[in-house]
Amino acid sequence: MSAIYFDNAATTQPSEAVLRKAQEVSAGVFGNPSSPHGYGVAAEREIWAASKSLSQALGVAAQEIYYTSGGTEANNLAILGAADAYKRNGTHIITCGTEHPSVLEPARRLQALGFEVTVLPVNPLGHISAALFQDTLRNDTILVSLMQVNNETGAMHDIPMFSEIVKRRCFGRSFETLFHVDGVQGFGKYKLPLKNIDLYTISAHKIHGLKGVGALYARRGVRLTPLMYGGGQQSGIRPGTENVAGIAAFGAAALAAVCGCEDSLKRAAVVRDTLIRELRKLPDVFINSAGGWERGESDYILNAVFKGVKGQVLVNALDAEGIFVSTGAACHSKRGDDNHVLKHMGLSPELRQSALRFSFSPENTVDEALRCARILAGLLPVLRRADTVRPCKAGI
Amino acid sequence: MSAIYFDNAATTQPSEAVLRKAQEVSAGVFGNPSSPHGYGVAAEREIWAASKSLSQALGVAAQEIYYTSGGTEANNLAILGAADAYKRNGTHIITCGTEHPSVLEPARRLQALGFEVTVLPVNPLGHISAALFQDTLRNDTILVSLMQVNNETGAMHDIPMFSEIVKRRCFGRSFETLFHVDGVQGFGKYKLPLKNIDLYTISAHKIHGLKGVGALYARRGVRLTPLMYGGGQQSGIRPGTENVAGIAAFGAAALAAVCGCEDSLKRAAVVRDTLIRELRKLPDVFINSAGGWERGESDYILNAVFKGVKGQVLVNALDAEGIFVSTGAACHSKRGDDNHVLKHMGLSPELRQSALRFSFSPENTVDEALRCARILAGLLPVLRRADTVRPCKAGI
Repeated sequence: MSAIYFDNAATTQPSEAVLRKAQEVSAGVFGNPSSPHGYGVAAEREIWAASKSLSQALGVAAQEIYYTSGGTEANNLAILGAADAYKRNGTHIITCGTEHPSVLEPARRLQALGFEVTVLPVNPLGHISAALFQDTLRNDTILVSLMQVNNETGAMHDIPMFSEIVKRRCFGRSFETLFHVDGVQGFGKYKLPLKNIDLYTISAHKIHGLKGVGALYARRGVRLTPLMYGGGQQSGIRPGTENVAGIAAFGAAALAAVCGCEDSLKRAAVVRDTLIRELRKLPDVFINSAGGWERGESDYILNAVFKGVKGQVLVNALDAEGIFVSTGAACHSKRGDDNHVLKHMGLSPELRQSALRFSFSPENTVDEALRCARILAGLLPVLRRADTVRPCKAGI
Repeated sequence: MSAIYFDNAATTQPSEAVLRKAQEVSAGVFGNPSSPHGYGVAAEREIWAASKSLSQALGVAAQEIYYTSGGTEANNLAILGAADAYKRNGTHIITCGTEHPSVLEPARRLQALGFEVTVLPVNPLGHISAALFQDTLRNDTILVSLMQVNNETGAMHDIPMFSEIVKRRCFGRSFETLFHVDGVQGFGKYKLPLKNIDLYTISAHKIHGLKGVGALYARRGVRLTPLMYGGGQQSGIRPGTENVAGIAAFGAAALAAVCGCEDSLKRAAVVRDTLIRELRKLPDVFINSAGGWERGESDYILNAVFKGVKGQVLVNALDAEGIFVSTGAACHSKRGDDNHVLKHMGLSPELRQSALRFSFSPENTVDEALRCARILAGLLPVLRRADTVRPCKAGI
């Protein structure tokens, strides 16, 4: 039996085209893109080609893209960088309790540095109240950071609406409140017009690119204090020799993702819908995100609670069957940390401990969903009995 | 005629073993190292194996290695991170005028934040006076940052001596002055005992690894304020999903470099010596670094001045002949910036503009050195004549 990989929100398998491009550039175009000779120029061309692909995918200018080592660095550059650059305009920042740690932790750092951070609550579906959002905006709000697709549950904030509220509020004011979107789980899956968005984070390894590469779109004119300083690459905003092969492969991944976007979405949705349908047949299983795109949820992520079994026990049991899922975000799940997203959505500690995240790619199939549900149906009664006999330890 | 690549200080060609390892891991071990399931564990094992290789190469513990996106980030993490973490002990920092911009620029940033930075001068060989160094150390000096091998000239500071001076001075004091070494051009080429060194920067793409990966050795117990915040990877010091394939390939590159260290050095030295010998036959050519290891200079880098021709003109002319050299550090040379290292060494603006850097790898041959010198001998009279007729523009 071949393995089933349902952990695509943690990371994806690089595509053939990505692997080919990375190998081709690593082996054949190894110059330093800052070198003025032929080898350097060839390397610079690869970066430029990737920037063209990414800018086309995002509908922005190639010069507005800054490469980073991944989504975490891009989120940090956006938040710490904008807060420092615009602190003279104000020190109030708005984000949401269900954001990724690479948004919440920089926000916490800013709080320690004297900024005032409002962390908005969400309803049980993971959504923010528009009225509350509007009330939270202040004249000294310099930055709002909201994610496009939640990495734990797939909940999608209505970014066009929130960003419009922000820009309307700033209209005629001496400075604009910047709007940052963590698009790591959304880019290449759902098209987001960047009309009212100033900063947008993307990551390669979530769209079948390589790990170690991300990018930040920063609207022309937006100032950012760099996280690091050096040889002046990327206009000094993000110095350091560029990861040319990773960036070139990112371009290939982005182009493929955006071009195949609708088709991929349909394929992921049918896998997810199948799994939801089958899971609903099982006793004491609750779906935490079942709406699909029209109800503000991603078709690529499914979060479910399996009452009476610890999530980690289920992850291990499925692992033994060749099925790879997670209890939540990879960075937290291994340490057995509490799931802050489900907590914000109002789930009890017991239910939070029993949650699993299934996340899909266009490569997954309906058969895999059926097999996964069948195996879960077999495992659940056994594990529930075992779990009542001896409490299982979280983590591995 | 095959190309001659004499720009190995800018970047090196990845080795076959590195390319194979990167491809193997990218394609086959694509899990998120933080995921607790089988795919994640396999990815984590690759990182661990690389850490074992690197720690063996450095003579340190695997847990003391933090991966970054490259040398620039590692230098920034060391300098900004240590300065922030230890600012209660003092605010004085010492570095040298010939350091890489990824050391000098963070130091400048610290100055803007209220730290006091002493930038030490060098003699015409690029070396620091030990007496001056000793006098510069103060009771509130929290950090010293010196590079192992200069990237422009190959000049090597006597790190064991300077680090011992620092540690002797701290003996019995309530806190230690940290000693950071930028080892980007030294690691894998010259073994440096890390006995009195607290922080050591290394980069993969300078030793035939991939771009986008570096590491910082931080002695156990040394605290660092992170540059970015997120999911807690690498003990929170450097969060973000690790570049697993790049790191695994770094391990392979480091092992190969360290094992073949002495042999490589001999091969590079003979190429460099040949080029020096041949260049000395040409009129109005001065060698800026001709000592070799015993006189405190790297055998991998040769800096020479070709009086009466602009360096950039020579780079372009050699490029047309399939020979790739640079006017200096890649990050500066394209922008036609002044060479701050040669300036600190006391070279006049005219001579600085006429400098070329040749940098070698063990793959270079004596024949290449001879061919390069022969072509230069042919080009120089022509270019010198042309340069007197019409002034050439710097840059491309």
